[in-house]
Amino acid sequence: MSFRHTLTERVQFADTDMAGIVHFSNFFRYMERVEHDFFRSLELSIREDPAKIPEAECVGWPRVHASCDYKAPLFFEEQFTMELLVEEVRSKTVRYMIRFWKLTGELCAEGRIIAACVRRDPATGKMKAVEIPSRCLAKIQTAPSELLTSAVSPK
Amino acid sequence: MSFRHTLTERVQFADTDMAGIVHFSNFFRYMERVEHDFFRSLELSIREDPAKIPEAECVGWPRVHASCDYKAPLFFEEQFTMELLVEEVRSKTVRYMIRFWKLTGELCAEGRIIAACVRRDPATGKMKAVEIPSRCLAKIQTAPSELLTSAVSPK
Amino acid sequence: MSFRHTLTERVQFADTDMAGIVHFSNFFRYMERVEHDFFRSLELSIREDPAKIPEAECVGWPRVHASCDYKAPLFFEEQFTMELLVEEVRSKTVRYMIRFWKLTGELCAEGRIIAACVRRDPATGKMKAVEIPSRCLAKIQTAPSELLTSAVSPK
Amino acid sequence: MSFRHTLTERVQFADTDMAGIVHFSNFFRYMERVEHDFFRSLELSIREDPAKIPEAECVGWPRVHASCDYKAPLFFEEQFTMELLVEEVRSKTVRYMIRFWKLTGELCAEGRIIAACVRRDPATGKMKAVEIPSRCLAKIQTAPSELLTSAVSPK
Repeated sequence: MSFRHTLTERVQFADTDMAGIVHFSNFFRYMERVEHDFFRSLELSIREDPAKIPEAECVGWPRVHASCDYKAPLFFEEQFTMELLVEEVRSKTVRYMIRFWKLTGELCAEGRIIAACVRRDPATGKMKAVEIPSRCLAKIQTAPSELLTSAVSPK
Repeated sequence: MSFRHTLTERVQFADTDMAGIVHFSNFFRYMERVEHDFFRSLELSIREDPAKIPEAECVGWPRVHASCDYKAPLFFEEQFTMELLVEEVRSKTVRYMIRFWKLTGELCAEGRIIAACVRRDPATGKMKAVEIPSRCLAKIQTAPSELLTSAVSPK
Repeated sequence: MSFRHTLTERVQFADTDMAGIVHFSNFFRYMERVEHDFFRSLELSIREDPAKIPEAECVGWPRVHASCDYKAPLFFEEQFTMELLVEEVRSKTVRYMIRFWKLTGELCAEGRIIAACVRRDPATGKMKAVEIPSRCLAKIQTAPSELLTSAVSPK
Repeated sequence: MSFRHTLTERVQFADTDMAGIVHFSNFFRYMERVEHDFFRSLELSIREDPAKIPEAECVGWPRVHASCDYKAPLFFEEQFTMELLVEEVRSKTVRYMIRFWKLTGELCAEGRIIAACVRRDPATGKMKAVEIPSRCLAKIQTAPSELLTSAVSPK
């Protein structure tokens, strides 16, 4: 069972824009990176393998909401730590909070992603929200509220 | 004076991901595209030209917040219309709402960007929030609340 | 039958990097944009629709080669024209040359893409190079050599 | 003195496209990633710091050429190793060859980047090719030809 995961990355040149800082849209790509790394750390994958799980049971995790509050810019070659916390687990969605920390301990951004658990409906071929399977629920739990409400640098 | 701007685009192959739909982070790039097009339509630029405006007065518009609620996916080669509305003009920030419409009239996403007006502080070299210059205020106004509260397809 | 297609675009903020110019990788995204627009202009799609063409006959066009020579940078908000020329049509591949022109008539880059015509092999599930279908060959032809060897601004 | 550098990365979801594989343009972003990591491994930076090196002597490395030959696709979550080799050092340019290896030892792509050494001309404000400074030349050398001509998996 886990509710927290961290990942340290380095800003790449292609992530910056002409303002000399990481483009705001790339924070969302970074958030997805730590989310997927969290799943791998739990021996889950957001892309389930039909060779291991019956195809009719494979689920995906499209986003229904994403947001980010920006507090300080990130620069080329700078390293930063993402701290993912599970903010809420509902029957068909998971909400993550992701904090971006500079190595100095400064909080530079705080984002959220709400991912819905979906499965392809064989009748319509469309994705449909479904209850989160027990294989996932068994590993993901909501973080304690004190971790969610007070941002403390992981360093 | 303007409070609304629309732009129709087509989904490019590189905007999609292996789920076969536009990657959620690209909605933020699309939002920026209509925002900057809005500025150009007003003969403004989010990148002011020091050849035209004294460099000490040039302002930029970094984001302090961005969010998106996703309702329906966009697919490769699909055309969609972005409808930007000025949701709030404050002394140092502007908040935009951007609705994404399929050509069928279906609302597929609704996003928000809050951009802060900043200028480089000559003493520290850092960006600092400043009051929005009158050359911008003269052209941007808050949209009527009925436009903001009820989503009506621009078609 | 066609061997040439042009498309004028504007540099977006997210296309730039901290050097203040379009990131070199984005020229490849731009090239794909004009290539796909060329297909649409011929009422073809690089993503064939199984509702219109039997799925076993649908082909795709992955790249086996891509290159670009950079001569002058492109800047934020600058408009540029891409000129696509069909450089060679072989039995299973098409080679495109794409020239990037500033509106002043300056040549800023010259790129190439070789796309292979592929179809999913039902036995292995893998993509396999196949002969270009006649529905495509009927519309695409090699450009005259004088167009390929001497770059003349489309203006 | 170094002529070779390797870096192992994992394919991210946002790197894929609707064909289910890494988009061809992202190989160029990956190449830049290993190139910059090579510089850092030599205690160099492609973005020199005016606090350490007189600003008039700071150099940059824009690309004059980039190319890639694609042999096998990369998939989501797959790990791959990039092997950078210095193919040629000239007075004002460096040419890199970058091989992409699957962990199975399969060669999936081979790319090249030619980077020019430039400095801002104080008179015109434009970038101008200059001789590679000795601080860089002292650390970068051409790889032995047998490494360049025969691709051997680094595993």
